Amino acid sequence: MLKNTYPKKQLLPRYNAMRDKDIMNYVFQPGSIAIIGASSDGEKEKSVGWTGRLLQFGYEGTIYPINPKAKEILGLKAYTSVKDISEPIDYAIITLPRHLVPNALKDCMTRGVRVVHIYTAGFSETGEREGIELQKEIIKIIKGSDTRVIGPNCMGVYSPMGGLSFDIRFAHETGPIAFFSQTGVGGRRFLNLAIGRGHRFSMAVSYGNGIDLNIADFLEYASQDHETKIVFIYIEGLRDGRRFFDVLKACNRVKPVLLLKAGMSNSGASAVSSHTASLCGTKKVWEALFKQTGTIRVECMEEAVDLLVAVRLLPQITGRNIGLVGRGGGIGVICADMCEREGLIIPPLSTETRRKLARITPSTSGSSIRNPVEIGLGISGVSERYVEGLEIVASDPQIDCLITFINPEDYVHYGIEGWIDDLMKAFIEAKKNLSKPFCVVILQGTSIEIFEITLQLQSQCQKEEIACFLSMDAAIRAVAKTISYHEFKEE
Amino acid sequence: MLKNTYPKKQLLPRYNAMRDKDIMNYVFQPGSIAIIGASSDGEKEKSVGWTGRLLQFGYEGTIYPINPKAKEILGLKAYTSVKDISEPIDYAIITLPRHLVPNALKDCMTRGVRVVHIYTAGFSETGEREGIELQKEIIKIIKGSDTRVIGPNCMGVYSPMGGLSFDIRFAHETGPIAFFSQTGVGGRRFLNLAIGRGHRFSMAVSYGNGIDLNIADFLEYASQDHETKIVFIYIEGLRDGRRFFDVLKACNRVKPVLLLKAGMSNSGASAVSSHTASLCGTKKVWEALFKQTGTIRVECMEEAVDLLVAVRLLPQITGRNIGLVGRGGGIGVICADMCEREGLIIPPLSTETRRKLARITPSTSGSSIRNPVEIGLGISGVSERYVEGLEIVASDPQIDCLITFINPEDYVHYGIEGWIDDLMKAFIEAKKNLSKPFCVVILQGTSIEIFEITLQLQSQCQKEEIACFLSMDAAIRAVAKTISYHEFKEE
Repeated sequence: MLKNTYPKKQLLPRYNAMRDKDIMNYVFQPGSIAIIGASSDGEKEKSVGWTGRLLQFGYEGTIYPINPKAKEILGLKAYTSVKDISEPIDYAIITLPRHLVPNALKDCMTRGVRVVHIYTAGFSETGEREGIELQKEIIKIIKGSDTRVIGPNCMGVYSPMGGLSFDIRFAHETGPIAFFSQTGVGGRRFLNLAIGRGHRFSMAVSYGNGIDLNIADFLEYASQDHETKIVFIYIEGLRDGRRFFDVLKACNRVKPVLLLKAGMSNSGASAVSSHTASLCGTKKVWEALFKQTGTIRVECMEEAVDLLVAVRLLPQITGRNIGLVGRGGGIGVICADMCEREGLIIPPLSTETRRKLARITPSTSGSSIRNPVEIGLGISGVSERYVEGLEIVASDPQIDCLITFINPEDYVHYGIEGWIDDLMKAFIEAKKNLSKPFCVVILQGTSIEIFEITLQLQSQCQKEEIACFLSMDAAIRAVAKTISYHEFKEE
Repeated sequence: MLKNTYPKKQLLPRYNAMRDKDIMNYVFQPGSIAIIGASSDGEKEKSVGWTGRLLQFGYEGTIYPINPKAKEILGLKAYTSVKDISEPIDYAIITLPRHLVPNALKDCMTRGVRVVHIYTAGFSETGEREGIELQKEIIKIIKGSDTRVIGPNCMGVYSPMGGLSFDIRFAHETGPIAFFSQTGVGGRRFLNLAIGRGHRFSMAVSYGNGIDLNIADFLEYASQDHETKIVFIYIEGLRDGRRFFDVLKACNRVKPVLLLKAGMSNSGASAVSSHTASLCGTKKVWEALFKQTGTIRVECMEEAVDLLVAVRLLPQITGRNIGLVGRGGGIGVICADMCEREGLIIPPLSTETRRKLARITPSTSGSSIRNPVEIGLGISGVSERYVEGLEIVASDPQIDCLITFINPEDYVHYGIEGWIDDLMKAFIEAKKNLSKPFCVVILQGTSIEIFEITLQLQSQCQKEEIACFLSMDAAIRAVAKTISYHEFKEE
């Protein structure tokens, strides 16, 4: 069973690399970074360059901007080449035109740089001869070298612990999730969505074409990392399928792994060739891998964000029987259908439960006291009956998990005051008292006003570590997949 | 092929019922409405009562509030009973405790009221003897009567033409969509979502337990109504399956029908019994009905809103080959997989098309010139290359339809100015010039700022009649189902 170890608030620690242990320490906590190809135009380097990015994110190690035309970049001494730097260089970012990459890489090797992130694109993923040849060349250059490479064609590393990020918007606090991704833009989008939903990360790498350091290396490290409790991977293809399988299986034994394998379809596989030029593998092989390793399958980035909410915040759910509580019989029926599509059941409640519910529900209200249950969420606001109803449903022996849904638009429409506070009080009380796991769905509206309320409720739920979703569909799928993972663990 | 007949702006016409033609004229354009059970508490009647609702929505016929304890309600003369009103009463709304419903109904029949909407709940849907008996009693009362009943346990009618609504937020302009629903709260939620997304309605009815006027009656009327171009139905069960099938088939011949059949699963069917107490029918029968009538199947209200965008705004799509254009190779690969799951294809582009794309794309940019295509949406904003790219992809003979996606978060992050205007200009130009249907996806973010931009882009697309979606998943499913409908029509 997953413990809820997500830290409430954790400040950026002082830089303290354990330099001697492992190459991954240089990846995630480098003491110095050379930026090969920093722009001599300070404004440009500040807004879209790596020097600006690292400075603004608050990297505390030494930065060496490299540009033969500059003496100083953003207040830092600039160098002509890494060869002019006498201090040790842990990490270098190459952001040069592609034809200059091989020589820059050779310079890094000469200088004993530990890790090189090749940000530059234009290699095998172009599908053109020139790019493919260039990629072959750099693979040849690094063969047998102590200098390890991330990329090319990728965003590189996000390490809140190391003060390193490829987007200045990312959170400075660390958290329990490790994320590894072959896609850069998509990976950045995922991280922004996830951080906005309250997720925090121990580490993340966008590794693009992955010619050297690859998913199995990162996953192996994350599986042993104590900070990391959950791993999410976006992958298009693999170089060493056997090793990945072994590492994945081992990792799943100790922490859940979510995997988005893109390029499962014919169209997708052909799209992969122009993205990271990976070999996709057959659908059958991948389906077997999911089954044999207990890996949680994810279809898109948005789903990953929701699944991480469920996996991170829900305690173990011991069965597939769901109690649905919310206002609107039609929505309840649609949700019941959705549940069954995802392998969940909306069982009838016991006579005892229905009797208890009847006691607090006027039969002429048109409210259902059967599952799905409508209770305490009438047009006069959120009543005390609501928590009472949740408690009654949760105590039914037939029920394994509760999902409750709220439509903010109704309360706003009827001008109910104080309903948000009433609702949050009810949620907090329910989380404390309910004998079963429960999660909350805030139905979306179409106006800014409703969206603001949704964000407010969601962020309050985050603080209280209540699993909160923004559509029934998202909640039901996330709960169903989380239950499947728990079942796999039990076997 | 559907024409885009959605009116830009249409003001509420003066009331002008064609009283002699059909019972449906009394349903949708009643000249007078009695509210049986109006509250004598003016404040209450104004905020949650029917008198307040009709006045605020701007109903222009005569309103007769009925309450023996009041002389006047919200400035209108109040009556003790419908029997005290000497003028003709077209329509009555019964909003009394359930045990008073049978006598009120008898009074309406005595007075020759044409249509009675029984708003009151607490009948068969309770599953209790008392409610079931009461429903049987009212069915017996109205048998053979000229007075027709909507309900019980429902919201009733929304008719912008007749100035009648069960929610004062609904739009006053009419439009091409008719909506009939067994669910009241869910139906109201759908209408609010749909109106927010720019849909407008010719008529809508929430008919609940449907003991008299039923879905086949409403659908038959809508199929002949000239204003109505598309019908959406939410249904839980039927009394007369054969008639519904015939009417549905006939309607689909002249206009598309979207159907959300709730209660298809076991859990769903049992939820229906406590909602509208309908007989659900077997899954097999319903699946055959969808197939034989060409009805577009909908899974939830949110999907219906998206599907209506596609069906209403996209011209006929002649094949299943999609050109994807947007920034982010990983997102492209995920979308390619999604497309194939929904029966769409992301075909390779012709050599000629790729040559044209290469001419306007630097190969070192890391941007794909294969399908999915990344073009003109770099970190420096929306360039002229973007429309050019869309036009090149659209002119590929392999491509039947274009989907383009935008991530506002990127542009906001890089502080690009004027990108929204540039983007809208590009969309408008694309709509004018592209040789193939195209639609737009605005990827969602997590902040208010992004949501505001999303709403702004979406409403500008609405004005320009550009099909706009808020997730790739929604766009792809809507396009796929719309294509299936076009294929059915061709057969």
